[in-house]
Amino acid sequence: MSRFICGKLSRIAPYVPGEQPRDKRYIKLNTNESPFPPSPRAVTAASQEAARLELYSDPDCTQLVKTLAKRYAVNEDEIVCVNGSDEVLNFAFKAFCDAERGAAFPDITYGFYKVFAEFHDIPYEQIPLNEDFTIDIKPYLGINKTVFIANPNAPTGIALSTEQIEEILSSNPDNLIVIDEAYVDFGCESCVPLIKKYDNLLVTQTFSKSRSLAGARLGFGIANPAIIRDLNTVRFSTNPYNVNRMTLAAGAAALEDEEYTQTNCRVIIENREYTARRLAEMGFKMTPSSANFLFARHPGVSGITLYLKLKERGVLIRHFDAPRICEYNRITVGTKEQMDTLLNEISKILEEET
Amino acid sequence: MSRFICGKLSRIAPYVPGEQPRDKRYIKLNTNESPFPPSPRAVTAASQEAARLELYSDPDCTQLVKTLAKRYAVNEDEIVCVNGSDEVLNFAFKAFCDAERGAAFPDITYGFYKVFAEFHDIPYEQIPLNEDFTIDIKPYLGINKTVFIANPNAPTGIALSTEQIEEILSSNPDNLIVIDEAYVDFGCESCVPLIKKYDNLLVTQTFSKSRSLAGARLGFGIANPAIIRDLNTVRFSTNPYNVNRMTLAAGAAALEDEEYTQTNCRVIIENREYTARRLAEMGFKMTPSSANFLFARHPGVSGITLYLKLKERGVLIRHFDAPRICEYNRITVGTKEQMDTLLNEISKILEEET
Repeated sequence: MSRFICGKLSRIAPYVPGEQPRDKRYIKLNTNESPFPPSPRAVTAASQEAARLELYSDPDCTQLVKTLAKRYAVNEDEIVCVNGSDEVLNFAFKAFCDAERGAAFPDITYGFYKVFAEFHDIPYEQIPLNEDFTIDIKPYLGINKTVFIANPNAPTGIALSTEQIEEILSSNPDNLIVIDEAYVDFGCESCVPLIKKYDNLLVTQTFSKSRSLAGARLGFGIANPAIIRDLNTVRFSTNPYNVNRMTLAAGAAALEDEEYTQTNCRVIIENREYTARRLAEMGFKMTPSSANFLFARHPGVSGITLYLKLKERGVLIRHFDAPRICEYNRITVGTKEQMDTLLNEISKILEEET
Repeated sequence: MSRFICGKLSRIAPYVPGEQPRDKRYIKLNTNESPFPPSPRAVTAASQEAARLELYSDPDCTQLVKTLAKRYAVNEDEIVCVNGSDEVLNFAFKAFCDAERGAAFPDITYGFYKVFAEFHDIPYEQIPLNEDFTIDIKPYLGINKTVFIANPNAPTGIALSTEQIEEILSSNPDNLIVIDEAYVDFGCESCVPLIKKYDNLLVTQTFSKSRSLAGARLGFGIANPAIIRDLNTVRFSTNPYNVNRMTLAAGAAALEDEEYTQTNCRVIIENREYTARRLAEMGFKMTPSSANFLFARHPGVSGITLYLKLKERGVLIRHFDAPRICEYNRITVGTKEQMDTLLNEISKILEEET
């Protein structure tokens, strides 16, 4: 920390991304990336754009917005494009929360919500999940705060129904409800159509997971035009050219190749169900996942031990050193081959440990 | 504006980027882009990376930081990489200014400084340039604010000497001085070596201009490690994967092709001097530019008329509708052919107007 830093910034704890080790090649099941490469159409589009980088990118993201609007059956002024969906979440904390209007989110959820709140010096309430890690919607009804809910939730993978989300929306007409749908394409119903009915709903999504574009950095928000205008106020007051030309092209091309995305999602869902079944046979307890990861614990081996032993054997999963979940690990669903290696290594570890 | 927006955000005026029209092909001399494509090595590196986008980018930007450290003869912990240099400027306003520690910058300079200050609700002082648009350094000596100076300044192109900047640095030991070197490669001395002598100096640079990568979005900050840690606190509290994989690869490859950059810079400087000479012959008054643009007015034709007439004729330049500079236009220096077209069109307009 320098002696020039101002205010609360000197005391905050930034987000810690999942490890990206470079010491050796791991089977990487720790940051919920897709095991599949991006659509060949996205690769071609990005490569072509690489020769035109001397010109700024389009700050209005015109072509990508058009393609998104068509794909999601919304209007172009109901969309904002960002440099990864973390950016639109950050914008939402900045635009729609302050000392008077605090934030609310589950105690166990995407760890960045707490970081955003601390960073912007926003009071926040962390609402405990039920014992079974489902979200109890009652505390959110009429809560009079800006609500952030990941649906499906991370790292549990458990989804709320759109009916439950509608209850939260209609009981908080004067507060914005942000539904973070980073993992929605793996078997959870999207709230996007609800933006036509609720002007207090912001849905955020990402190209990082189902569209295999984590390394391109592309996310978007969908909401009624007034909310999108506010988010653009933040964008144009900080970084108007926030999405680069190659990523804009890759994103639009990936959207045009919906069949590729859907096929990959189906395979990942199949692999998830296969892995869950095999893990259950080995004695693991899991939450019912609608995402591209499993959240699992074993009565016979501690969460940290399993994580460390797998890392030794070249398989990376994600461990969270937090009170209610430290016996669990979050395991990204990869290819069938990766899952078989994982299961094989786990079964050897269990033999040693139990 | 939605009814959910908080605080001062409802009253701020975001930055307005230079127009990026899509109605027809213009000779684009309005946003200080390079007229040359990126280095072929950068294009190849970015294209290769496009096939690996399913994995997140390296939040530590390890390879690019190594290459930058070598190129600028600084340590790796003295560098932060960002999604365009606007991002590091935004981070600096957030990290190093607050209600008690305001900002100071010239009244005529990069328009975004004022936007950042308003956005973060930071009191700021706009210090008038001299009549000839040079920066008077006296008001900055011991000013006790966080100082932002573009060197060379925009849109004037006029540079301060490093000796003048050292006076500002040494007279403000307890305040950060940010030197924005977006245009430094076109004939201005860099302050980067001074970071070893002054722990209150942050130098920001971009790949957008001399390295033809405006559309890739890549900038960086160089300062002592404590300042870099603070900037990383902001980065890891908002968007840790802020630079995408393709851009990281393009940036490192562009740095390895320094000869290509230097050749392009020499040609742009030659074209600038040629254009300045020809404009002077036509009666234009100009500031002495050390950048890749000229700032020019003609006694016989108003700034807005010249801008509009050139736009009609397919040449875009940048007009600023601001009190002291509305008779001027900022003209990006392009290829010799582009400059000849510009000069030819201007001479026809002058015949009509004078």
